[in-house]
Amino acid sequence: MEVINLNNKFSQFNEHWTPKIIGALNGQHVKIAKVKGEFIWHDHANEDELFLIIKGTLKIEFRDRTLTLQEGELCVIPKGVEHKPIAEEEVWLLLMEPASTKHTGDVEHELTQKELEWL
Amino acid sequence: MEVINLNNKFSQFNEHWTPKIIGALNGQHVKIAKVKGEFIWHDHANEDELFLIIKGTLKIEFRDRTLTLQEGELCVIPKGVEHKPIAEEEVWLLLMEPASTKHTGDVEHELTQKELEWL
Repeated sequence: MEVINLNNKFSQFNEHWTPKIIGALNGQHVKIAKVKGEFIWHDHANEDELFLIIKGTLKIEFRDRTLTLQEGELCVIPKGVEHKPIAEEEVWLLLMEPASTKHTGDVEHELTQKELEWL
Repeated sequence: MEVINLNNKFSQFNEHWTPKIIGALNGQHVKIAKVKGEFIWHDHANEDELFLIIKGTLKIEFRDRTLTLQEGELCVIPKGVEHKPIAEEEVWLLLMEPASTKHTGDVEHELTQKELEWL
């Protein structure tokens, strides 16, 4: 058991679209990521995914609408729903999803990370 | 799917030690609570629990130590670990735990809520 300071964890990396694991509970991982630019369209067939915005403004495109999330806002993306995150400026995210989740979903892409790093 | 604004959700209640559900994913609930004063010693036999501090300073006593969490800090309390949260001033918390979790664990207490409200 330890106190996990988000600012401290975010200070340990600068690369974009590389989620890092900072905690685990009940088969879920708590992750953080810095993102900037456009990600790829993907979904997670069996996993709901939570995005909480720590800094910045994130747009999430869905096939039928776009949500805009500011600092202090979150949304849950249900399993199977295609989405594409877009960050015009750098955004700091906290993610919560099952330990099994790949961040590019079922899409194999150069952005797909095989093994996520623990911070 | 919707944007959930934490400040907006916190503005909707003032009572202490009454977690409200604001989201659900993968069998877990995302909850928020305002707390002040001392809670009771309890544990959750089968459920890990995440505390993220949105505002204020929370002490969590364990049988062998005390952690102090500030705004922007989180900790995960593993299943079976007895703990007692203490807030000298009001604290705003975000919690993540299985939908089955009672906030007083296996302890039946006047603070135990039978049915949590969705905000």
